[in-house]
Amino acid sequence: MSTTQSLSVKSPTSKFEKSQMPLPALGPDSVHIKIKYSGICHSDIHQARDEWFEGIFPMVPGHEIAGEVVAVGSNVTKLKVGDKAGVGTFVDSCRECEYCLAGKENYCLKGNVQTYNGRHYDGTPTYGGYAQDIVVDHKYTLKIPENLDLAAAAPLLCAGVTVYSPLNHWGVKAGMRVGILGLGGLGHMAVKFSVAMGAETYVLGHTASKAQDAKDFGAKEYLITSEIAETHKNFFDVILNTTSADLNVDSLLGMLRVGGSLVNVGLPGNSQNYNPFSLVTGLKSIAGANTGGIQETQDMLDFCGEHNIVSIIELLDATDPATIDQAYSRVVGSDVRYRFVIDASTI
Amino acid sequence: MSTTQSLSVKSPTSKFEKSQMPLPALGPDSVHIKIKYSGICHSDIHQARDEWFEGIFPMVPGHEIAGEVVAVGSNVTKLKVGDKAGVGTFVDSCRECEYCLAGKENYCLKGNVQTYNGRHYDGTPTYGGYAQDIVVDHKYTLKIPENLDLAAAAPLLCAGVTVYSPLNHWGVKAGMRVGILGLGGLGHMAVKFSVAMGAETYVLGHTASKAQDAKDFGAKEYLITSEIAETHKNFFDVILNTTSADLNVDSLLGMLRVGGSLVNVGLPGNSQNYNPFSLVTGLKSIAGANTGGIQETQDMLDFCGEHNIVSIIELLDATDPATIDQAYSRVVGSDVRYRFVIDASTI
Repeated sequence: MSTTQSLSVKSPTSKFEKSQMPLPALGPDSVHIKIKYSGICHSDIHQARDEWFEGIFPMVPGHEIAGEVVAVGSNVTKLKVGDKAGVGTFVDSCRECEYCLAGKENYCLKGNVQTYNGRHYDGTPTYGGYAQDIVVDHKYTLKIPENLDLAAAAPLLCAGVTVYSPLNHWGVKAGMRVGILGLGGLGHMAVKFSVAMGAETYVLGHTASKAQDAKDFGAKEYLITSEIAETHKNFFDVILNTTSADLNVDSLLGMLRVGGSLVNVGLPGNSQNYNPFSLVTGLKSIAGANTGGIQETQDMLDFCGEHNIVSIIELLDATDPATIDQAYSRVVGSDVRYRFVIDASTI
Repeated sequence: MSTTQSLSVKSPTSKFEKSQMPLPALGPDSVHIKIKYSGICHSDIHQARDEWFEGIFPMVPGHEIAGEVVAVGSNVTKLKVGDKAGVGTFVDSCRECEYCLAGKENYCLKGNVQTYNGRHYDGTPTYGGYAQDIVVDHKYTLKIPENLDLAAAAPLLCAGVTVYSPLNHWGVKAGMRVGILGLGGLGHMAVKFSVAMGAETYVLGHTASKAQDAKDFGAKEYLITSEIAETHKNFFDVILNTTSADLNVDSLLGMLRVGGSLVNVGLPGNSQNYNPFSLVTGLKSIAGANTGGIQETQDMLDFCGEHNIVSIIELLDATDPATIDQAYSRVVGSDVRYRFVIDASTI
């Protein structure tokens, strides 16, 4: 079996190190992508540190993968050598359940195959994007529009689709007011999408430190969440929560218009409380969403191509693997504007 | 000012007694309805006993009003003398806010005028349906289809629309599976509507005592909620909660299909908990709804006329006003199948 140069951790308490990891052989349905850039998602940290569940080690995190096609199998027509291509959060799904058949592979009933820290259906572990190569079934690859900067496009594959999908599902468009709670990796993408979809977009945060950035991304206003419970009643059609902090759910529901939704993509570790009166009195909803299907991810990338939307990134040179450990610390401390991306040529 | 014979309580701890209560004069926009039947809603009890907020006493409860038109003002064309007519939970609204203009007077931003225990915008108190007469602005009256039994139609004005509106809003139709949580005054109406809308309908309860009734109303199956968390995962498109008990929200969310909604019309007194993972993993929602607008209530009544849907009732002779106090005790003990209706001729 061939291998690829990777950045891996041996255990939940290990530092990153360079290592050669297995690379599947090219089959008739495969696409071999030479990885150019790989985003760092907060979920990489949760998984590399076993904060969610017991992981598979050694682990090569990374599910925001952007690169160039260097080989394709004989059945592959959607991509050709030289194309800009991407891989997101999963690399296979059962292909049979009602959700796979409906293009919602992100909700596959059998459980899709996560890009890293997962297992293929034959039991072999998956290794992710902090590497120089990946070989993936063509059905689970995405085409990245040629006009997008490839490094800044990498975070679209998770952060991008994670917020695009709910904004799309909840019908965000001109004439609506959308509140984006939190302005981090997810939030800054959500602002760009919501603005491009035509909605009057607001950022809700707990300090004004990012107020200018919010406006630069097209937001109409930056609001301090704790100050607007009374002044912004019946105001938003959708509030998208991109944070993992505990929420004052009833206060946020009070800011929604009749029929409005508080949609969660950020995941607080604790259960949250709501008063049923807060929902009943205005036909309101508390909802959640988890990434998107393959077609929806492609639609998102095409939308980005049309509107020239990419992530704001800080590019990392991984010549010294400790750079990744340091980047993780900064992500945990919310000290990144707005997404770290690893330059794979330095791995 | 003329008066009408009513059943009223003087204070939150008083028994019902017969009394003459004020009846507004007929104006050019008014409809005078001779009340024939008036349903007893659980919210009547909460209000007559000050369990929700400080009430206006003496109080004549009742917002499930069915009767016959005996006089109309000069501007009234939607109803004529002799028509079967009804009044629901509100008798006026601001008529100016975006929701009133959109036919969602139930979510009026100024606050609509509740049929009883409320105040008209000029400050005068409203008196409800436990009476022989009511005079209401024609815009807030409903036409009851001639083919429906008038006594059994009375509960449609609150219980009916309270469950019809969310089933309608969440698009219940053939090909969907709907779970109705609780089989009381609201729940039994919800089963009938869901079945008539074409959905495969299930009743979820904590004992099997009403299993046969559920099937008689058209439900496919009666399920014990605590027993189906594992067997009915990814099963329902909509679960409508008609109870006011505390819920195991995460367990119910687990029974929903991707994109499914847990919709609350029953109101537990306590805040409820949910784990955000339960929402995010399946594009799921927790929602709530509160009655319906005037046009939607009329649509509901017309739907009932077409499908011959009425409530299952127990008719009360109120010659002795203590009958109402006793009925209240039975409602609190869930000992009614399925709605008490007062014969107004006995008031």
